[in-house]
Amino acid sequence: MREEWNGFSGGIWEKEIDIRDFIQKNYTPYDGDDTFLADATERTKELWSQVMELTKQEREKGGVLDMDTRIISGITSHGPGYLDREKETIVGFQTDKPFKRSLQPYGGIRMAVKACDDNGYHVDSEIEEFFTKHRKTHNEGVFDAYTPEMRACRSSHIITGLPDAYGRGRIIGDYRRVALYGVDRLLEDKTSQKESTGAVMDEETIRQREELSEQIKALKELKELGRIYGYDISGPAKNVQEAIQWMYFAYLAAIKEQNGAAMSLGRTSTFIDIYAERDLKQGVFTESQIQEFVDHFIMKLRLVKFARTPEYNALFSGDPTWVTESIGGLGIDGRSMVTKMSFRYLHTLKNLGSAPEPNLTVLWSTRLPEHFKRFCARTSIESSSIQYENDDLMRVTHGDDYAIACCVSSMRVGKEMQFFGARANLAKCLLYAINGGVDEISKKQVGPKYRPITSEYLNYEEVMERFRDMMKWLARVYVNALNVIHYMHDKYCYERIQMALHDKNVTRWFATGIAGLSVVADSLSAIKYAKVKPVRDKEGVAVDYEVEGDYPKYGNDDDRVDEIAYKIVHDFMGYIKENHTYREGIPTTSILTITSNVVYGKATGSTPDGRKAGEAFAPGANPMHRRDSHGAVSSLSSVSKLSFMDAQDGISNTFSIIPGALGKEDTVFFGDIGFELEPDCACREPNIEDFGEAQYQSN
Amino acid sequence: MREEWNGFSGGIWEKEIDIRDFIQKNYTPYDGDDTFLADATERTKELWSQVMELTKQEREKGGVLDMDTRIISGITSHGPGYLDREKETIVGFQTDKPFKRSLQPYGGIRMAVKACDDNGYHVDSEIEEFFTKHRKTHNEGVFDAYTPEMRACRSSHIITGLPDAYGRGRIIGDYRRVALYGVDRLLEDKTSQKESTGAVMDEETIRQREELSEQIKALKELKELGRIYGYDISGPAKNVQEAIQWMYFAYLAAIKEQNGAAMSLGRTSTFIDIYAERDLKQGVFTESQIQEFVDHFIMKLRLVKFARTPEYNALFSGDPTWVTESIGGLGIDGRSMVTKMSFRYLHTLKNLGSAPEPNLTVLWSTRLPEHFKRFCARTSIESSSIQYENDDLMRVTHGDDYAIACCVSSMRVGKEMQFFGARANLAKCLLYAINGGVDEISKKQVGPKYRPITSEYLNYEEVMERFRDMMKWLARVYVNALNVIHYMHDKYCYERIQMALHDKNVTRWFATGIAGLSVVADSLSAIKYAKVKPVRDKEGVAVDYEVEGDYPKYGNDDDRVDEIAYKIVHDFMGYIKENHTYREGIPTTSILTITSNVVYGKATGSTPDGRKAGEAFAPGANPMHRRDSHGAVSSLSSVSKLSFMDAQDGISNTFSIIPGALGKEDTVFFGDIGFELEPDCACREPNIEDFGEAQYQSN
Repeated sequence: MREEWNGFSGGIWEKEIDIRDFIQKNYTPYDGDDTFLADATERTKELWSQVMELTKQEREKGGVLDMDTRIISGITSHGPGYLDREKETIVGFQTDKPFKRSLQPYGGIRMAVKACDDNGYHVDSEIEEFFTKHRKTHNEGVFDAYTPEMRACRSSHIITGLPDAYGRGRIIGDYRRVALYGVDRLLEDKTSQKESTGAVMDEETIRQREELSEQIKALKELKELGRIYGYDISGPAKNVQEAIQWMYFAYLAAIKEQNGAAMSLGRTSTFIDIYAERDLKQGVFTESQIQEFVDHFIMKLRLVKFARTPEYNALFSGDPTWVTESIGGLGIDGRSMVTKMSFRYLHTLKNLGSAPEPNLTVLWSTRLPEHFKRFCARTSIESSSIQYENDDLMRVTHGDDYAIACCVSSMRVGKEMQFFGARANLAKCLLYAINGGVDEISKKQVGPKYRPITSEYLNYEEVMERFRDMMKWLARVYVNALNVIHYMHDKYCYERIQMALHDKNVTRWFATGIAGLSVVADSLSAIKYAKVKPVRDKEGVAVDYEVEGDYPKYGNDDDRVDEIAYKIVHDFMGYIKENHTYREGIPTTSILTITSNVVYGKATGSTPDGRKAGEAFAPGANPMHRRDSHGAVSSLSSVSKLSFMDAQDGISNTFSIIPGALGKEDTVFFGDIGFELEPDCACREPNIEDFGEAQYQSN
Repeated sequence: MREEWNGFSGGIWEKEIDIRDFIQKNYTPYDGDDTFLADATERTKELWSQVMELTKQEREKGGVLDMDTRIISGITSHGPGYLDREKETIVGFQTDKPFKRSLQPYGGIRMAVKACDDNGYHVDSEIEEFFTKHRKTHNEGVFDAYTPEMRACRSSHIITGLPDAYGRGRIIGDYRRVALYGVDRLLEDKTSQKESTGAVMDEETIRQREELSEQIKALKELKELGRIYGYDISGPAKNVQEAIQWMYFAYLAAIKEQNGAAMSLGRTSTFIDIYAERDLKQGVFTESQIQEFVDHFIMKLRLVKFARTPEYNALFSGDPTWVTESIGGLGIDGRSMVTKMSFRYLHTLKNLGSAPEPNLTVLWSTRLPEHFKRFCARTSIESSSIQYENDDLMRVTHGDDYAIACCVSSMRVGKEMQFFGARANLAKCLLYAINGGVDEISKKQVGPKYRPITSEYLNYEEVMERFRDMMKWLARVYVNALNVIHYMHDKYCYERIQMALHDKNVTRWFATGIAGLSVVADSLSAIKYAKVKPVRDKEGVAVDYEVEGDYPKYGNDDDRVDEIAYKIVHDFMGYIKENHTYREGIPTTSILTITSNVVYGKATGSTPDGRKAGEAFAPGANPMHRRDSHGAVSSLSSVSKLSFMDAQDGISNTFSIIPGALGKEDTVFFGDIGFELEPDCACREPNIEDFGEAQYQSN
């Protein structure tokens, strides 16, 4: 066994890159309370007050303190950067100083230029010219291949948030591998992977060999990044400080290369705790020192910054980065994976104060240790900064070493990745079905020129038949647009270091999304059970609907309409699956827009459920506001009839409860929250009032 | 009909892009003599003396007069450049002045940097850095995907001349289209092609859409190139001067984008003659004016220059560009396609003096008009600067609108392209078969570790079995290496403007090549009919061979050995065909090395035919020097037993005849000459003494 591994229990992880095996063989579940936690050290406080001062300056300068306009960001593009070199126990910034945003044009030069321009900086004209003439970007590639139909769907917002202008994000490198194995061992592994590619040089094999070469180059650069900061990370980390530092260098390399909207960290706390336990046992570090490393690490994650346009920031209500870290959960052997480190990570919310980043996400199970649950509850109440996700549900599909990318997308770390896929507006699709593909707002022919419905009252069977045809069309355009996007991203903006920290053969989830579910369900229910009369403009386009009589509404545990909702999701997923997907991506769908529901509503005309043009949709899979009149349980029951297998990328139900209303002041409900990432929508501001799907009640 | 087309006979060419149809409907065969030809004008002489002066300066400066080190070459990268603006009737240079070589790093930055360095120039360091870090090149892509086996085969020279360090060349745009239709019509056509791509966005469709987008951008830039020189080439050319100018702009765009070793022009003379005939008839221009346009056009083609390394120039004995123009031939309707313009093109060799460029190639048929034949013969004798190829043979496969790329590769203009493929050394392959894959020179294991032959004397059946296995292996490595090369060239160095001047769906020839045929045939014959005893070194590697007794030698019309030669080509082509080829390329093979035979010989150890290590191979499909002891007819007869269908990319037989030996001073033999293009070999210096396959004897 390697010297750095002394004290660890051996296993298959010694011979193969297998972080899960290492964790399972070595971690120490912790079911005690939080009294062991150490407060922030003086150094930590001083560093943090420096950050606060810089934050203030940044705010005063309008949101951006400094930007690179000449140095193109890469793993080794910058010299070292520090807040205070003497005080920092974990080092590394994206550029040569904190708060300076890097220049990342691979995803799209226009976005990069605009991000600078709008903040009063100007990308060096030679660089702009170079990326316009000689170095094609993802963005240009996508628009070269888009069809007019795809562009029309994009303009009319029947498909929105397509990641076609900058990094796609949602890929999580297994940054822990660098700590456990050191870069050299990973290089060996990748080299042998390259040696074992197929003998026939078809395009897939050639691409794989080139990608592996790029991964190898990126790993070599990662080693160089360590060297720039005075560390040799070619071998394994020797203690918890190094383990955090090695891991952070790997993550830092990723965010120096990619500016995807969500650059998640993974699931690192249980892994890191193994080093902490060993160091504590051997007297290498004290609890206070270890907490300091964690505080400094989290501080670094809080300072992840990208150059964004004001539009982006407006849509996302700030400057989010979705650095998601998944904490806790159960092992498939039934042991809790909560460790002291889980507490330490969350404790940063106290030591450094509340913050939305990193996006600390507890993988929630009813069987988590009681002390940890209480600690989470209290920290949530105090900080409003913890995200919860249903581990009991996701563990079935992903086992016990998955993590969350962004807000909801789950994937096995280093073994699965997601092609991020934005969202289709099914409510608008229903209107296209009624209007023969003519957009009800622009009056342009966006969808296929099917026959519009011309009857005085809408007939359910007729509408359903056309809706199915239109959904089929929409699914086809949507999946094909995503095929273009992911092809071009691989071609012009490949995630070298992130994929270097994956296995050779990864499972690719091909994510799609649905918006407007409850609007569609209620509209179809109205057509079926009440009488709906379209109001047509002089060109014959139905622009409004008169509903005569009442109809069963989604959210009241009424199978008549809940069945419709189920069927729509099920059918749409079926239509999605009919299409060819890039790189054998496995299609998934999510129903999880939280705040883009407002944006979708604005872009959608009046609907047959009585909703007027421009009115917001319900978030995610929620029933429409105030229509769930039979109480919380009935409302939740309707949502729960949707099949998770039809929407494995997540179903969200935003459910607000005022703690006081439940009788006790400390009451808090946990559950999946469906914060989402989408370039043209959604703000994420973790807040206790957003929690949905009540699962746990403390006190 | 468009105004610019007044006087032309209509046809399908008006509705579709169809140059052949236009030619067939409009050209005027000419079977008269050369007395109509006009001498060089004063302007032409003055311009040419300027060129001569610059050539002298260039030679004095060591071969390069000026180089771009900061401006990356592109269609619109430079302002206008002139020799003498007042005197030039056809304008346009690759950079902003004649004799200044452009910077083309897409194929490979290392080669571009070295070409500058070796000539005392230095590529701007920012550009070098950019192309190293941010803009990957063809060269880097290829080496990322190459296997160690491919690299070993490259180093040991069992495969040589792979186009992996700069442009691959060998693609001929149909530059005539720009003259006949103008750029706008071509843009319309490409736009509608893009509209009609497949509905399923699989990788092939996405690539096609992106390529069509790039083609469209290139056509727009081509229009801009015209504008830079003060011409509006959006519409058709109105007269012969414009037709030549439009066509030249299109070709100029191609050589501003690509530095492939052979950037051929196509088959333009018969097309251009249609304009000349119309102008003569309408009194627009005189013969003298038209010849002046042609002289100035050819002068431009003579000044095509690329930045090359001294090694490249040494190998190719100078600074060749292989701007091949194919002249004459017959139509499939039996009419001669010789026009007055065919004479005018060749007459430049008199008006401007002899020159190896452009590579004026007569498509020879026994049925060409007698006057033209005589004119060719005389011009050949006077200039030593005409290449001849067998139209009667190629017309069968390619019809009557094909052209020659480089020296021998034939393709239908605008409808077929070739993936250029270098050459495999079959003599070395035979030695690998004997030595179990160990290279006889480096002693490294390059081929598979098959059992070596250990018997005292070589047994024919045993050797053949192993040779077949080794050829199979070699064919596999070779085709796979070419797959990598062409994948990467399309990815990093796509021929935008050249492919914009092709149809949407092109036939791709996947070219491969064979070297050492006669060495192999004779070696196998020696093993079969004499006794061959390997001389092994202390490691057991056969490094020499003792031949006891005589054996039938290839080149004497002896079926015993000719059958072996036929079988080797046939079998190797079969093994080539067993492999997957990139983009459904149709495999072809050529047996045509002319001077690289020396290089191949140097890299190959002693062979069982008695040839000693380092001795030159015979060129192409030639018998080994002095072994064809039964006279010319027997020698040619042996070669002619090879099947053209097994080697459609060309079979060359270098055959030297001293005119005097045939009794008349003016005697000249025509036929296919196998000049070849290969980065690591071959000089091309068209010379009457190189002509082979005697076909025609004048006087």
